Amino acid sequence: MVFEKNDIFVMAGDSVTDCGRMYESLPGGWGSFGDGYVSLVDGFLNTLYPELRVMVANKGVSGNDILLLDERWDEDVLGLNPDWVSVMIGVNDVWRQFDGLLMNVHMVDKEEFEATYRKILDRTLPKVKGMILITPIMIERSNDNPMKKMVMEYADIARKLADEYNGKGENVIFVDVQSKIDAFLSELNEFILCSDRVHPNNKGHAIIAKAVLDAIGVDWSR
Amino acid sequence: MVFEKNDIFVMAGDSVTDCGRMYESLPGGWGSFGDGYVSLVDGFLNTLYPELRVMVANKGVSGNDILLLDERWDEDVLGLNPDWVSVMIGVNDVWRQFDGLLMNVHMVDKEEFEATYRKILDRTLPKVKGMILITPIMIERSNDNPMKKMVMEYADIARKLADEYNGKGENVIFVDVQSKIDAFLSELNEFILCSDRVHPNNKGHAIIAKAVLDAIGVDWSR
Amino acid sequence: MVFEKNDIFVMAGDSVTDCGRMYESLPGGWGSFGDGYVSLVDGFLNTLYPELRVMVANKGVSGNDILLLDERWDEDVLGLNPDWVSVMIGVNDVWRQFDGLLMNVHMVDKEEFEATYRKILDRTLPKVKGMILITPIMIERSNDNPMKKMVMEYADIARKLADEYNGKGENVIFVDVQSKIDAFLSELNEFILCSDRVHPNNKGHAIIAKAVLDAIGVDWSR
Amino acid sequence: MVFEKNDIFVMAGDSVTDCGRMYESLPGGWGSFGDGYVSLVDGFLNTLYPELRVMVANKGVSGNDILLLDERWDEDVLGLNPDWVSVMIGVNDVWRQFDGLLMNVHMVDKEEFEATYRKILDRTLPKVKGMILITPIMIERSNDNPMKKMVMEYADIARKLADEYNGKGENVIFVDVQSKIDAFLSELNEFILCSDRVHPNNKGHAIIAKAVLDAIGVDWSR
Amino acid sequence: MVFEKNDIFVMAGDSVTDCGRMYESLPGGWGSFGDGYVSLVDGFLNTLYPELRVMVANKGVSGNDILLLDERWDEDVLGLNPDWVSVMIGVNDVWRQFDGLLMNVHMVDKEEFEATYRKILDRTLPKVKGMILITPIMIERSNDNPMKKMVMEYADIARKLADEYNGKGENVIFVDVQSKIDAFLSELNEFILCSDRVHPNNKGHAIIAKAVLDAIGVDWSR
Amino acid sequence: MVFEKNDIFVMAGDSVTDCGRMYESLPGGWGSFGDGYVSLVDGFLNTLYPELRVMVANKGVSGNDILLLDERWDEDVLGLNPDWVSVMIGVNDVWRQFDGLLMNVHMVDKEEFEATYRKILDRTLPKVKGMILITPIMIERSNDNPMKKMVMEYADIARKLADEYNGKGENVIFVDVQSKIDAFLSELNEFILCSDRVHPNNKGHAIIAKAVLDAIGVDWSR
Amino acid sequence: MVFEKNDIFVMAGDSVTDCGRMYESLPGGWGSFGDGYVSLVDGFLNTLYPELRVMVANKGVSGNDILLLDERWDEDVLGLNPDWVSVMIGVNDVWRQFDGLLMNVHMVDKEEFEATYRKILDRTLPKVKGMILITPIMIERSNDNPMKKMVMEYADIARKLADEYNGKGENVIFVDVQSKIDAFLSELNEFILCSDRVHPNNKGHAIIAKAVLDAIGVDWSR
Amino acid sequence: MVFEKNDIFVMAGDSVTDCGRMYESLPGGWGSFGDGYVSLVDGFLNTLYPELRVMVANKGVSGNDILLLDERWDEDVLGLNPDWVSVMIGVNDVWRQFDGLLMNVHMVDKEEFEATYRKILDRTLPKVKGMILITPIMIERSNDNPMKKMVMEYADIARKLADEYNGKGENVIFVDVQSKIDAFLSELNEFILCSDRVHPNNKGHAIIAKAVLDAIGVDWSR
Repeated sequence: MVFEKNDIFVMAGDSVTDCGRMYESLPGGWGSFGDGYVSLVDGFLNTLYPELRVMVANKGVSGNDILLLDERWDEDVLGLNPDWVSVMIGVNDVWRQFDGLLMNVHMVDKEEFEATYRKILDRTLPKVKGMILITPIMIERSNDNPMKKMVMEYADIARKLADEYNGKGENVIFVDVQSKIDAFLSELNEFILCSDRVHPNNKGHAIIAKAVLDAIGVDWSR
Repeated sequence: MVFEKNDIFVMAGDSVTDCGRMYESLPGGWGSFGDGYVSLVDGFLNTLYPELRVMVANKGVSGNDILLLDERWDEDVLGLNPDWVSVMIGVNDVWRQFDGLLMNVHMVDKEEFEATYRKILDRTLPKVKGMILITPIMIERSNDNPMKKMVMEYADIARKLADEYNGKGENVIFVDVQSKIDAFLSELNEFILCSDRVHPNNKGHAIIAKAVLDAIGVDWSR
Repeated sequence: MVFEKNDIFVMAGDSVTDCGRMYESLPGGWGSFGDGYVSLVDGFLNTLYPELRVMVANKGVSGNDILLLDERWDEDVLGLNPDWVSVMIGVNDVWRQFDGLLMNVHMVDKEEFEATYRKILDRTLPKVKGMILITPIMIERSNDNPMKKMVMEYADIARKLADEYNGKGENVIFVDVQSKIDAFLSELNEFILCSDRVHPNNKGHAIIAKAVLDAIGVDWSR
Repeated sequence: MVFEKNDIFVMAGDSVTDCGRMYESLPGGWGSFGDGYVSLVDGFLNTLYPELRVMVANKGVSGNDILLLDERWDEDVLGLNPDWVSVMIGVNDVWRQFDGLLMNVHMVDKEEFEATYRKILDRTLPKVKGMILITPIMIERSNDNPMKKMVMEYADIARKLADEYNGKGENVIFVDVQSKIDAFLSELNEFILCSDRVHPNNKGHAIIAKAVLDAIGVDWSR
Repeated sequence: MVFEKNDIFVMAGDSVTDCGRMYESLPGGWGSFGDGYVSLVDGFLNTLYPELRVMVANKGVSGNDILLLDERWDEDVLGLNPDWVSVMIGVNDVWRQFDGLLMNVHMVDKEEFEATYRKILDRTLPKVKGMILITPIMIERSNDNPMKKMVMEYADIARKLADEYNGKGENVIFVDVQSKIDAFLSELNEFILCSDRVHPNNKGHAIIAKAVLDAIGVDWSR
Repeated sequence: MVFEKNDIFVMAGDSVTDCGRMYESLPGGWGSFGDGYVSLVDGFLNTLYPELRVMVANKGVSGNDILLLDERWDEDVLGLNPDWVSVMIGVNDVWRQFDGLLMNVHMVDKEEFEATYRKILDRTLPKVKGMILITPIMIERSNDNPMKKMVMEYADIARKLADEYNGKGENVIFVDVQSKIDAFLSELNEFILCSDRVHPNNKGHAIIAKAVLDAIGVDWSR
Repeated sequence: MVFEKNDIFVMAGDSVTDCGRMYESLPGGWGSFGDGYVSLVDGFLNTLYPELRVMVANKGVSGNDILLLDERWDEDVLGLNPDWVSVMIGVNDVWRQFDGLLMNVHMVDKEEFEATYRKILDRTLPKVKGMILITPIMIERSNDNPMKKMVMEYADIARKLADEYNGKGENVIFVDVQSKIDAFLSELNEFILCSDRVHPNNKGHAIIAKAVLDAIGVDWSR
Repeated sequence: MVFEKNDIFVMAGDSVTDCGRMYESLPGGWGSFGDGYVSLVDGFLNTLYPELRVMVANKGVSGNDILLLDERWDEDVLGLNPDWVSVMIGVNDVWRQFDGLLMNVHMVDKEEFEATYRKILDRTLPKVKGMILITPIMIERSNDNPMKKMVMEYADIARKLADEYNGKGENVIFVDVQSKIDAFLSELNEFILCSDRVHPNNKGHAIIAKAVLDAIGVDWSR
């Protein structure tokens, strides 16, 4: 269990993280968690480890790609003086390259994605006890699917950065949710977890929350 | 793990079970789970054991005491041909004895509660692989509190019946959620789990779901 | 152009056909068309051929599989005394076999699908000038995708029946929309046409409408 | 009866005072009273003493602790040029120390509570004919309950300040609503007065209003 | 104090009694009281005399004249097995004779009003401990006003019946609210109590509730 | 008929004039008239005299007393460059002296009312062809009623000013609506025209509109 | 003035008559008039002739053609025991022949229109003091417009029937609203009166009401 | 086919173009098209020519006349760096001259219309590959109708400008939608296409879209 008493844990990301949280709620307060994996992480973490009193703050914002996340990072994330920060980002950076083909939107290629991710890490790691990098996911079994392929490439950037910063002595935990999703899909199909292959239902969020809680080192036998 | 492939698992109860489920949804379908412990049980059970393909059906109805539950049992619960049935009932039977003092409502005393519970067990156990009896809960630390005291007495009836029917060779699992709540409350207070001491928030439901999943025999190391 | 003056053309199907039509509207009246391909077919057919005065009636119902369609066929479709009937059905029959795995729903296999489709044809063809069988579609490029594969098998049943009944001298037009969708997907991706691979946007409906209007024999140079 | 003709009586506080008052209403006008004790005080005061024509202004704001109350005091309360001011504050200062344990909120300890209360008294008493200090309440019978215990300590601060300022010749009336609530709870239980032990129903507000009106010196035999 | 332990007290009437009560609430339960005098009577009665545990049930229905009240009396009032019943009726019987002049509605003259009132008394008094007859009111100072004059005549019927039945040994309490209203209006004007001279605001309802509670024999010094 | 071709006629006032007009409508456009007398004046004026093409603009604002009207006069009324202006004001100036007794609101006495009315006349008359002063009304038969008495005094101020300015050669038309209302009330009662004696229904507005149209000189035999 | 004291006047028709009246209102009561010509007729009739106390009942129903009107005539119109009945019908009978060309609806030709109109007259005239036949209208200047032409032919049927029944000694008043509309349109255009040439705005309804009131013999100089 | 790969095509206009588009949508994204001809143009263009990847942006705004269009042109249209721009404007410029006769609105006469149109062309043509000028339309058969006549004159200005600028070597395509509408109306009537002669239904928009797509050079045999 990586957390210590009174740690503040900010979970940043896009709509998969946001999940309808009420923006006017106090961080960690009623209505602040949304109904996705953040609510599950808070629920299990704080009831398995009530003595730790970890504040869990949902800072996902629907529609965010890494550029929009970067823009609001200092205020939304660092502004809460977190001890730990998780980030699950990238699916919108990829999705726009598919659904945005007729829309003339700026597309974040892998270079820009990595550079921006690096900027976020560089100004966060010195201020926190550790970070948790969660892969973006696509709930699609076939690795031949072009968007799935690209999502995995962007996930690999997160993995590469985790390795690199760990090598530099930073405390970075990498959570490969995509592989958990893929394992599920080898048994059942994508329609059990979501309707659009991006936004999970209660079962999809259980997979994400389980992966994050395992990575944090939760002892489920408590 | 007590469930087998394609088992149908009906979870019956009151508002703690119901949690805003959409009544027009197909059992096990989108929107059918509510946002309480049933959603968590379905989420973790089916993603930890996707090969089992367990159908989880929420059949909680807000405001139910055991008499109202008994009335709709045959259609709502047995009508789904369940393999397993859980039941979490009793808090309204107790609550009415406190908030109903100026209302001239029928009050279900312990004898009637036990007799009705027994009627439910007697006509269900012959048709299912097993039942899971979950204690009603009050999220209150002090055992001197009169309503807490009474909730525990009604919970003891569930415990007694579980023991008795197990003794007769029936497959009945007893889940003592109240003790898990009490353990939490020895560390933190009731306002962390709910506002009215009856309806849990995401953390309260995590405690219930964890207790149920443990009782089912889920292997969290999967 | 297969239609004649004052023909009544009923277009039956599921949510892809329904598209939010107002059920209380008179058939062919304001609000009756929904905002999918039926609206486009009515719009172009009646403005390219105003002299024909064809009544176009949308009789799609969201959520229908072929069994539900069959149940309401006599009242909803034959009850309007149509001269021509189109039917686009099957995607829900297939979809339930994927998203319904944890729901204990009745699944319509290929035999039942064909038999029911045949029942519909047998009691309709004697009463109409002709029928138009439109393939169900899945907006997915990969033919290795299990649901896409199965949708194509159900579409093949429509094709087979069209051939067979044409061979018997019946007037049956087959419209292979799936192949039009696939041609589009060889150039662009599925997210341009829809978000969940089943319910098309304005572009997806343009493909369907174009295919139907071409099959009817519309002269676009008018 | 402490009030004189045309006195302006401002009643400040938190959600127990606010009770859904319409903020856009004129003070003392339609919709301005909310549906809690302020409405009752206005109703009985002005019908028992119509010749006094006392303006009663509800200036409760939901969620206020003493710091937020202090911030808006000059504009909201003193801005109305009151002759008399009542204040019922403190439950949120206490509550946050229980429900805010996982939220990293600023907590108002007893020292800060007293100092801020003192600031309010010091700048109000010179401008008014008198003040009425109403204890915050928790609708809980057991004095062993940790939050009840703390609410009573904060209430004691109000009592101590009332005594102290009275000793200095100021006109300060102290209203011990908690003891009235406790007397009721020795006969019936908390669920008769509210659901969450903080926000009273019509009966709970009758207790508060009766205590305030008695303290004002209302002659009920009129 | 006329009430005894566990008495059921049904308060019947028109919109002045109804006051927006939720019809789906259980009698005596949350939301059942409306926001008029019934809520105040329940609030003060049960907090001044918690040991009596009186169930107060609001059975006012907006728009009722005495004929409509009579029609639903057996089910709505007697169906609750009351120990005490109050009735405040008549303003609509009068009002229709003014606002209904262009509407061809049946008008209840004094003879019909008295006869129907008598029917209600005759079948209620044998089943209850006592009845409370409350005058209908018009919030208008001038006794020359034609509608005020007529309201007073209908009120006099209630007074006459109370006297008569008391003379026969029945337990009937007469509450002359109109005179309390008139006393108030000698000091202030009708716009302080209501906008349309029929439906009171919080102050008007305080007058009614005070009169009823005094008639019941409440000891305000408790 | 006092109007000439293309005259702009602005009708200013309070809620009796406003009557739910849509503030976002263009003056004289759809939805701009409200559903009171302004709508009737526009309707009959422009259909009896279509050749005049008079623009009728409703500039009533609910709740206005003469001070609030004066504040917005330059922008709201003069800003439209009117040829004719009607003003019906005063009932709120009076009403506040009755319903505002417990509210510490500024009350507009007769001197201030007259002075402000005069200010309005003085800066309007030089810019327009003429003004129409409409009496405020109270729909109450008895001249002994204190508010009726005061409304008539304020109406007399309008009458006095009309006389005075006419005497100075200004074109001022005085419309005594109150006397028309009183004539009606000598036959029927106030409840036929409104419920609160201030806001007329369709019949009350017919009286006002008829009086205004007669004052303008409409020839009803057209 | 054709009406006598306490006459009941029922005004039947389609949406031009209905105008959003509240169906749950009592006939002649608040909200029962809609906001079209019926409201104006009631407003002016009853304020010009308060001594007559005429009950005006709006019995227009949106969408009615003469067949639907005939179906509900006995209950809706005769059921009120009217002294006078007006009927304004026919525009939907005509309109369907234009907007229903692609809808396979039953169309009411002139023969059926006249026969049905005759049936209505035959069973009404024996029971009433008189009837008022109002022409259907189309707000279109050009008599070459095909729908205008047809509306006028249907209006001529009403005129012919009025003449014929008058010739038989019946009391039938014919109101030619179309000619009033046409006179207006010779000065201004159709967009001043409505947007769709069928449903009038406040000005269009003023024309209808004026025509009806003139036909009734209202003395506008009152 | 005039478009080239990745062209940006902005379609500007009034409510006929707008058709309920969601203003907060990204140009070319979900919800951005409205449900009129722009949606059809995008649907058919991009599915017939998926390889071109044309971004279609709806920039119609309800209520716009050419002055309001000109005001927002630089930001709304040129701000998107379009390759092609269509403009369908003028019906409001004309309509206001009919429905605005009693409203004192600024009316755009033909000179101002042409001058403003010219200003738009002059600052757009240098920046784009070409423009498409679409006639405003009135869905009215008779050319004697005054508004139809005027709409055609304003349409002629668009035609004249197209000719003139083409003569100067500019790439301007003129689309005469009015003549397509007129051809339809020679067969059926205006009520088949719309209710108010200005805002088309699905059939009216099919005519517009077909005309635009033909003008662009779409090959319908694809």
